[in-house]
Amino acid sequence: MGISSESFKGQNFISMKDYNRDALDFLLEKSDEMIPKAEGGSNMLSGKIMASLFFEPSTRTRLSFESSMQRLGGSVTGFAQAGVSSVAKGESLEDTIRTIENYCDIIVIRHPEETSSIKASQVSRVPVINAGAGSWEHPTQALLDLHCIKHAFGVIDGLNIALCGDLLYGRTVHSLIIALTNYDVDVTLVSPPQLRIRDDIKRDVEDKINFIEVEDLKEVVPNIDVLYVTRIQKERFSDPEVYNRFRDVYLVDKELVDAGKENLIVMHPLPRVTEIDEDVDGLPNAWYFKQVRHGVYTRMALLSLLIGC
Amino acid sequence: MGISSESFKGQNFISMKDYNRDALDFLLEKSDEMIPKAEGGSNMLSGKIMASLFFEPSTRTRLSFESSMQRLGGSVTGFAQAGVSSVAKGESLEDTIRTIENYCDIIVIRHPEETSSIKASQVSRVPVINAGAGSWEHPTQALLDLHCIKHAFGVIDGLNIALCGDLLYGRTVHSLIIALTNYDVDVTLVSPPQLRIRDDIKRDVEDKINFIEVEDLKEVVPNIDVLYVTRIQKERFSDPEVYNRFRDVYLVDKELVDAGKENLIVMHPLPRVTEIDEDVDGLPNAWYFKQVRHGVYTRMALLSLLIGC
Amino acid sequence: MGISSESFKGQNFISMKDYNRDALDFLLEKSDEMIPKAEGGSNMLSGKIMASLFFEPSTRTRLSFESSMQRLGGSVTGFAQAGVSSVAKGESLEDTIRTIENYCDIIVIRHPEETSSIKASQVSRVPVINAGAGSWEHPTQALLDLHCIKHAFGVIDGLNIALCGDLLYGRTVHSLIIALTNYDVDVTLVSPPQLRIRDDIKRDVEDKINFIEVEDLKEVVPNIDVLYVTRIQKERFSDPEVYNRFRDVYLVDKELVDAGKENLIVMHPLPRVTEIDEDVDGLPNAWYFKQVRHGVYTRMALLSLLIGC
Repeated sequence: MGISSESFKGQNFISMKDYNRDALDFLLEKSDEMIPKAEGGSNMLSGKIMASLFFEPSTRTRLSFESSMQRLGGSVTGFAQAGVSSVAKGESLEDTIRTIENYCDIIVIRHPEETSSIKASQVSRVPVINAGAGSWEHPTQALLDLHCIKHAFGVIDGLNIALCGDLLYGRTVHSLIIALTNYDVDVTLVSPPQLRIRDDIKRDVEDKINFIEVEDLKEVVPNIDVLYVTRIQKERFSDPEVYNRFRDVYLVDKELVDAGKENLIVMHPLPRVTEIDEDVDGLPNAWYFKQVRHGVYTRMALLSLLIGC
Repeated sequence: MGISSESFKGQNFISMKDYNRDALDFLLEKSDEMIPKAEGGSNMLSGKIMASLFFEPSTRTRLSFESSMQRLGGSVTGFAQAGVSSVAKGESLEDTIRTIENYCDIIVIRHPEETSSIKASQVSRVPVINAGAGSWEHPTQALLDLHCIKHAFGVIDGLNIALCGDLLYGRTVHSLIIALTNYDVDVTLVSPPQLRIRDDIKRDVEDKINFIEVEDLKEVVPNIDVLYVTRIQKERFSDPEVYNRFRDVYLVDKELVDAGKENLIVMHPLPRVTEIDEDVDGLPNAWYFKQVRHGVYTRMALLSLLIGC
Repeated sequence: MGISSESFKGQNFISMKDYNRDALDFLLEKSDEMIPKAEGGSNMLSGKIMASLFFEPSTRTRLSFESSMQRLGGSVTGFAQAGVSSVAKGESLEDTIRTIENYCDIIVIRHPEETSSIKASQVSRVPVINAGAGSWEHPTQALLDLHCIKHAFGVIDGLNIALCGDLLYGRTVHSLIIALTNYDVDVTLVSPPQLRIRDDIKRDVEDKINFIEVEDLKEVVPNIDVLYVTRIQKERFSDPEVYNRFRDVYLVDKELVDAGKENLIVMHPLPRVTEIDEDVDGLPNAWYFKQVRHGVYTRMALLSLLIGC
């Protein structure tokens, strides 16, 4: 039996591991259908409520979900930081969810614990979307990344996709590489040795995808179609000298982009700090702000499918 | 002249003392009428705005009001903590209200001062709802508690209702016991001696209701229909030993519930920390998460009656 | 070619310097048209989203904009303090705007930097409204002030308008005096010597308006029609004695108001702390809480004109 809207109704969206090629293609197609609705507005989710539970601060993801819900005519409740919630009074996450599910039709949760959205989905009667769970996964970001890549190249199969930066703690790249196992792509993992991809993620993908792990970004640039940059945090290094060296080596500037293919696209989950030089912003290769818009399309698709309207 | 929707239009909802049996029965009936609207949504309050002024953090009450307003098609503005309000600049509560009333059709206020919602209602031209005023009252919680009890037993009259825990500082139980004076019930007040019900509340109710004050929960459990549990805060005790003793004595676990009547219901305004053991959650006696849903029905009724649509 | 709705569609609203008499008169007229919509609600901006980016705390301005948007049927997303935004992760304001513009149809920004809203408008594809930029300007406050004065007197021309208090750091009075250069008014600037109006603002207005700078409020009160009071912050004075003296000298109480013209109106951008005595609140001269309502009318007009519906 094939994938249809019914396959998603009432379901959670927790990990990229739960989706095969058919499911992802279906979601990308549904996201396309949302493009006119993102401009003109819609009443699809009128009367529906999304609870947006952000235990960690976020501008981008929280506002992207809120905007997506509102573009479909729905309402939003929730909180933007743990301090204003009952967690401060010692309530368990499960109890918070057993409460909030009474106020809404869908729950979107960001939480510092890796198992948070799994726990939430186990007790919730309404669908739960993982909007970032510790260093584990951030699957809606991966979905928007796929949608963006597909719009840039028309297809995903056949591309060489480099994921660069902090592959150890970066939940974004974890979800993305898992998603990419469904496509016929080459993956180039570029990171300092101490920030190589997590063992558990590596085990999950190693039989399903062609990938190489390298340290040097410049040497691989001429061969890649997508350069997916992530931020490296200073705190990850015991020796500041080592941090500084990698920060410089991984600086994406106009010179680096010029050394790549003409159609190379540069992506970033944002916020960027110094990883991408501002002189790249004006190039046609810069796709990191376009990604934001694809986040609205894909989240609109997800919200409407999971709520089931 | 009897109670009708007109009796509530434009009025405040500040203290349970202001409501007699007829008024409460009317509110409970109106809450029943909201049950289908809570599922399907409604446009009753379309174009109306609720200002939600939470000077103290809250997940449950704030989101319950927001969800109730949105289910009726209304919008929500406001703040979730005092720090983002003009109070930080030294503005009086009265001036804040004289400002906010221009932005909304109803004000919902939680504030650490006992007289906050009274003060607010004295200057506001739009209805004010007390959503928790210091240690004084939390009347919308009492309304949802009544609605919950009525749904569990069909009637409220004739029941033996135990209120257990911190009866001195617990605004929830203050409002509930005042509400219960309108019904033919027996009330059992269970608390440590240092947390017995406040003198002013006791004086208000002592001629109107049958109640006993006891320390031992286990001994009364076999006789009660409703066990309403509240959280005891460690800070209330000068001697941590005494705190620990009471925490253990008032632990509601499966064994305790099994010692009660078959139809005993366990309620809690939430958040619970350790007062109710998780092994009670799965029992049919556990009504504390069901209460949350009744909060939406009763607050929908209140919002629509006070705004007058 | 004259001013019409088309003149505003898709434009920003950053500084009062950008508006001449025709533009202001048009905005005031459009604000009048919003009065019935503020009471009854409207669907003019249904499906539209306002992003409300408050990097500094605010009750009044933020809720005024939110309420204005909601009265027109629109939705609101955003944040009420910088701490929950990506700025905490080191993102530039420009990058934040390049992100947020994808979530909304209009951006309202308050920010401690003077050039914040200019920077935002330079990168944004959607209209940007300056809701307070450091000590520079707060042009929507000036617009509501004009609307308020016009409603009090029928005309603005011919009045003697005193601006009193902190004229150096007060962004509100900066925008207001710039706006007043379009009218045939006399302006009396009343402040301590160390809080006289900023040089750059003074240069902007000095050839366009009749104004005098004085220290003594009592002496000018009999001659003025409008007394616009602002708060003086203790931190602005190195010597607390000097602060105390000015606080007392500029206290607006019943006695002072009685010394003025019968139709004198007292205005204040709020919050007031001790600048206006509560015994003035009940006088017909007190217009500071009425101003709040005019804020809704003028912001409704602005939102609908800039979004262009």
